Amino acid sequence: MERGRENSMGILAVGSVAFDTIKTPFGQREEVLGGSATYFSLAASYFTRVALLAVVGRDFPAEYLQLFREKDLDVSGLQVANGSTFRWKGEYGFDLNTANTLDTQLNVFADFDPVVTAQHRGMEFLFLGNIDPDLQRSVLKQMDRPRLVICDTMNFWIEKKRESLMQTLAGIDILVINDAETRQLAGESNVIRAGRKILGWGPRTLVVKRGEYGALMLDGNSVFSSPAFPVEEVVDPTGAGDSFAGGFVGYLAATGDRDPSALRRAIIFGSVMASFNVGEFGPERLQALTFTEIENRFREFRQLTHFEDL
Amino acid sequence: MERGRENSMGILAVGSVAFDTIKTPFGQREEVLGGSATYFSLAASYFTRVALLAVVGRDFPAEYLQLFREKDLDVSGLQVANGSTFRWKGEYGFDLNTANTLDTQLNVFADFDPVVTAQHRGMEFLFLGNIDPDLQRSVLKQMDRPRLVICDTMNFWIEKKRESLMQTLAGIDILVINDAETRQLAGESNVIRAGRKILGWGPRTLVVKRGEYGALMLDGNSVFSSPAFPVEEVVDPTGAGDSFAGGFVGYLAATGDRDPSALRRAIIFGSVMASFNVGEFGPERLQALTFTEIENRFREFRQLTHFEDL
Repeated sequence: MERGRENSMGILAVGSVAFDTIKTPFGQREEVLGGSATYFSLAASYFTRVALLAVVGRDFPAEYLQLFREKDLDVSGLQVANGSTFRWKGEYGFDLNTANTLDTQLNVFADFDPVVTAQHRGMEFLFLGNIDPDLQRSVLKQMDRPRLVICDTMNFWIEKKRESLMQTLAGIDILVINDAETRQLAGESNVIRAGRKILGWGPRTLVVKRGEYGALMLDGNSVFSSPAFPVEEVVDPTGAGDSFAGGFVGYLAATGDRDPSALRRAIIFGSVMASFNVGEFGPERLQALTFTEIENRFREFRQLTHFEDL
Repeated sequence: MERGRENSMGILAVGSVAFDTIKTPFGQREEVLGGSATYFSLAASYFTRVALLAVVGRDFPAEYLQLFREKDLDVSGLQVANGSTFRWKGEYGFDLNTANTLDTQLNVFADFDPVVTAQHRGMEFLFLGNIDPDLQRSVLKQMDRPRLVICDTMNFWIEKKRESLMQTLAGIDILVINDAETRQLAGESNVIRAGRKILGWGPRTLVVKRGEYGALMLDGNSVFSSPAFPVEEVVDPTGAGDSFAGGFVGYLAATGDRDPSALRRAIIFGSVMASFNVGEFGPERLQALTFTEIENRFREFRQLTHFEDL
């Protein structure tokens, strides 16, 4: 791959920036930096240029802006609105598999109206994070012709805005969602059959995130299945899926490739970034990686999955 | 590998033979042939010689004995006791992930006392299916020195006979159990840490079966992770874990290898056999495979998991 960020094509990433209060069996943290766009952008920043399109409140501290800038994120699209930043509070049980949401305060995120500035319209990769599908399409319409549009969503939109979501799906290239969302979106319990159904609605590629079990990628011709990296010290799964998406899209943008073998390597880089992220609270670990660590873990993935032919 | 069954070392397989009544969202079957030893032996029969060590009642029909013989299983160790054959009744919900046991009648299986005959004592591979750990050790003691001892167990024995199970674990080479059993046995939610703990109790290798998510193999030096084959038509998951074990041990016995790369291929063959088994009710699919189908699916696994180096 084109190592590092030189000559790579940038990503415009729309999503949430939030304060998270997190409790896991291993401790808790109050109001740490969070949100889907945060995890996505920090993970992707190791591969390529990323511009954030999000909204925060007046209470958003300068130190976090400074952190974004230190990771070379373009924060010119980060709107600062009157009011408070989005807050989420959640708790994980013994097995760390599901977050129990204790409180959600949308605050300024409730009125988020993403405006793509002239300098971002030409970006070649667009990541539509998990926001209202109406807004996802609004962002897409404001763009010139991005080479690749990658989209996330969640159960809330599948239930409440299905029609709008279906319109969004018709305009994207790659959908990145989890197991349960895949089954729910397709109304089909078998994840492979569910995936094939979803591919009929627009996306050419579906990536199914399976948490500690890895990821599955489907397109018209093939299925790719990758395990998660076996992490012995999982302290906080918050943002794992967004970190995965950041590594996945980041790698694709860094190389400009989108052939099947690049997509497969991108899945592995996604899993690498998620595996780092879960090792510390919030996005702490994503702030302090080196590209050598990332490449080394990619190579460990080969050891993890390789078997010889007959 | 040594294709087919010639020159391969045999397996003695102890476990249950039962009548299963199964209900899934795709239909139901009354009193079909089942039991852990049945699924294991049918799956392993494609790779090597298998001798069954189990008990059935007087009601066990000649047609099933005939079926075993047609698959070249050695049924000389199949005891026929006064009474009825073990019966199990279960139901699967929409996602097919967990069986809800509706009824269990142990019948002759309650007094099963496995006796290893002189002709089986020298067999080189021993599979201790999911039975009372006291009986597992009794079988092991009756054997000459098997080259490889592979063992299964379940939550019931982990809870009720933990001390005895620990003694069994001290005498085996490979433990093959599922996720939940791994966590429960070790009292540890992280499956990798749980696995390392279990490896300290005797087995050199731990295989963790994860159903639709594949399998994980741990030993002192490495971790191997393999996905499940993506099956679009899962109609009955009964016996998937035992079919997996049959393919896994069958391949090891067929080749006689136990180096890391053979163990990895064995995991893939286990996944192959499980993937066939779930496609039909009971062990129907396992009765009618060809070795070419098995090899072809092994090769499809490579397509499913392969990615290129950096």
